Amino acid sequence: MRTNKTKARKLRHFLSLKDYTKEEILEIIDLGLSIKKDLKNGIHKDHLHKQTLAMIFEKSSTRTRVSFETGMYQLGGTALFLSSRDIHLGRGEPIEDTAKVISSMTDMVMIRTFEHSKLEAFAQNSKVPVINGLTDSYHPVQLLADYMTMVEHGLDTNPIVTYIGDGNNMTHSWLMLASKLGFELRIATPKGYEIDKEVLNDAYTFAKESGAVINIFNDPIAAVQGATLVTTDTWASMGQEDEKEQRVKDFQGFIVDDALMSHAQEHATFLHCLPAYREQEVSTSVLEGENSLIFEEAENRLHAQKGLMVWLDQQR
Amino acid sequence: MRTNKTKARKLRHFLSLKDYTKEEILEIIDLGLSIKKDLKNGIHKDHLHKQTLAMIFEKSSTRTRVSFETGMYQLGGTALFLSSRDIHLGRGEPIEDTAKVISSMTDMVMIRTFEHSKLEAFAQNSKVPVINGLTDSYHPVQLLADYMTMVEHGLDTNPIVTYIGDGNNMTHSWLMLASKLGFELRIATPKGYEIDKEVLNDAYTFAKESGAVINIFNDPIAAVQGATLVTTDTWASMGQEDEKEQRVKDFQGFIVDDALMSHAQEHATFLHCLPAYREQEVSTSVLEGENSLIFEEAENRLHAQKGLMVWLDQQR
Amino acid sequence: MRTNKTKARKLRHFLSLKDYTKEEILEIIDLGLSIKKDLKNGIHKDHLHKQTLAMIFEKSSTRTRVSFETGMYQLGGTALFLSSRDIHLGRGEPIEDTAKVISSMTDMVMIRTFEHSKLEAFAQNSKVPVINGLTDSYHPVQLLADYMTMVEHGLDTNPIVTYIGDGNNMTHSWLMLASKLGFELRIATPKGYEIDKEVLNDAYTFAKESGAVINIFNDPIAAVQGATLVTTDTWASMGQEDEKEQRVKDFQGFIVDDALMSHAQEHATFLHCLPAYREQEVSTSVLEGENSLIFEEAENRLHAQKGLMVWLDQQR
Repeated sequence: MRTNKTKARKLRHFLSLKDYTKEEILEIIDLGLSIKKDLKNGIHKDHLHKQTLAMIFEKSSTRTRVSFETGMYQLGGTALFLSSRDIHLGRGEPIEDTAKVISSMTDMVMIRTFEHSKLEAFAQNSKVPVINGLTDSYHPVQLLADYMTMVEHGLDTNPIVTYIGDGNNMTHSWLMLASKLGFELRIATPKGYEIDKEVLNDAYTFAKESGAVINIFNDPIAAVQGATLVTTDTWASMGQEDEKEQRVKDFQGFIVDDALMSHAQEHATFLHCLPAYREQEVSTSVLEGENSLIFEEAENRLHAQKGLMVWLDQQR
Repeated sequence: MRTNKTKARKLRHFLSLKDYTKEEILEIIDLGLSIKKDLKNGIHKDHLHKQTLAMIFEKSSTRTRVSFETGMYQLGGTALFLSSRDIHLGRGEPIEDTAKVISSMTDMVMIRTFEHSKLEAFAQNSKVPVINGLTDSYHPVQLLADYMTMVEHGLDTNPIVTYIGDGNNMTHSWLMLASKLGFELRIATPKGYEIDKEVLNDAYTFAKESGAVINIFNDPIAAVQGATLVTTDTWASMGQEDEKEQRVKDFQGFIVDDALMSHAQEHATFLHCLPAYREQEVSTSVLEGENSLIFEEAENRLHAQKGLMVWLDQQR
Repeated sequence: MRTNKTKARKLRHFLSLKDYTKEEILEIIDLGLSIKKDLKNGIHKDHLHKQTLAMIFEKSSTRTRVSFETGMYQLGGTALFLSSRDIHLGRGEPIEDTAKVISSMTDMVMIRTFEHSKLEAFAQNSKVPVINGLTDSYHPVQLLADYMTMVEHGLDTNPIVTYIGDGNNMTHSWLMLASKLGFELRIATPKGYEIDKEVLNDAYTFAKESGAVINIFNDPIAAVQGATLVTTDTWASMGQEDEKEQRVKDFQGFIVDDALMSHAQEHATFLHCLPAYREQEVSTSVLEGENSLIFEEAENRLHAQKGLMVWLDQQR
């Protein structure tokens, strides 16, 4: 556990890439890659010796759970799994009280929930760093894993990334990543599933400074022309099961299959944050094809988040 | 894990303060304060090296969960979270069998349940110390945290403590603490919500020896006259949601607000074991006021319970 | 965590004793006994330093949970509890994807589920050893604990083991153990609750090589004649609650009581994997009698599984 000796710097949270500079994002990725290398060489450094991570899951997830719990353990600490059955943010007790109590006993908090405002309310009352493990608005830890995978495969040099699908938390997060790092991003959403206006405006603002090129389409074929990397997400995330039938109808033509990929650059990479629904948002041939890096990407959730946790701790 | 080398002394459990002497209670508090000091100075001693704590929750609780799980980890051990979804004491398998099996694999057990008799049945069949994490009858670990907070703020010298509210497990536990340590305790309950007669008799018996002054009221204003510390609890605990409407009606006039606090000593301290329902049992002004120590109290759950676990281990 | 340096040998899983030689089974038991001895002497060796075990429970169990979680911790690692509320094998996401992702982040996986085919599908796609924590077909870790108990009490020399009851996963596992190790096994099942034909054929095949004597009965008294060890299991396991009434009727005469035990050898041992239903499949007199080793057996789940995990790790 951190001592109360040094309280000089402002506490940093990780709620969205919006609050991070290009340099900070690259620092986190580098740190993650360095810790990954150590692990593969059997070197264990207790970067977060004896620290505890409270993981609050209002929305369940195997991938997020396993990566954070394993990651914290490998860094010399431990993680507490607080599910929606054990804790209800904002019900019974004001979220402010819960944040004060939990952050007085633990060293870091990860929250996976629906409303982004809940995450923000918790962070504002927390004495320790708070990490966004997914909200309806953003999924920034996934983007750290995605970008780490790009770096490892040399895909970070002048990438042209095309996102096909829903204007959701993944789309928003790609917008933040591209506009901060300064690369070209094209997004194709079906009509009625557009990106949040405010997020888009933020992205345009950041893009002016970074030199990023952001283009929005409703036609997947136009969006994918010459892309070096194509990515998508499930058409109906958790909590949207009711809308599934309508969504499947509205997303016709947005499947990432060989026909669509033929418009991208040769050997363009495919990424997907998983779980994937074969023959829905992506064809089996693309998902399991030679240019798919989905399992490297999934494993990198572990390594990228370890980099993030160590980085957040270093800021204290 | 403890070895089977030394089995000289009788195994101690922590089911109620009833079974503890004043000296023992103070020893636990001292130990907890000393370990808290170490933690704040960044000193980690593995008092419970490689030990495991089984935490059985038949009634959920974020606070109890986080404090015990973090505490055991910081002491060099680990904690297992067994929820009511994973274990049912006394259903399917006799509690005696479950106690024998679990205590043959772990080093300590914490149980949070409804019937106190279940806790006792478990303890009688356990080979390792059993801790009461809350029952319908008692909540002794909360009182350790409360008293630790009093000690830290110099409130343990001739305190006059007033408890306002339900004659429940918190009231019972305050009765045990006061009657063992020998201080003045006043309790005001609404009619129909009186303290258990047997518990009260026990308290009077212990008070004779310790010199404690115990007074029971139905009028909150009378009870709070000159108090140095005022405390209350939610009017409807978990499992009492059905009775809530009736209770709110019956507890009219028992809210701890500025008007009531004006009858206590100036700057009298306010404690609450949380979660608190603002403008129900306590006004926001008192709960969040300058004399409220609720968050220090909550954090002390961690430290007091660490003291308790180390103390219990030392008795083996 | 294991490094990726040495990948010479074929990855071993522990899905059924069917895949194990007599020598391997005895090695695991020996290893478990040696680690148990260390523990009782207060010696902690981090055999699985910094490793993580993912425990997937599609079917809940206190015993399996506590033994694996405590065991992994005592070996220097940690365990993740993934319940059926957090993960659904084969629903939403193909089991193959889940296996690839989880095994890319952890060092070992334990699965407790219904269909044995799910376990096999997971193992085929896993990069790390997979352990059967119970399926509808087999419960091999229980048999390791049972045999360890036999070894500790000198019951492994020319044993005559009689299993009374349902032709279920326990029966199948005893068939594998006896036919691999070469001892005499008698099984009495009620009509309509016979052993799976394929499992029986496997057992006969292995028995030819090992010299095991396997005999199947429908009459418990005939089966128990001269037995040195008698064992049974609940008549209605989890998921069979609907059939309970019918089963209780069909299993009349199959209770292991003093009358039945009188046909076994004098002081014949009684084992039961628990939970036990007194006066249903076993009388209280037998279950709690002087020849019952049920609690030693239960504790040995911890020790036998520790031996297994270390053995599996050594094969990498």
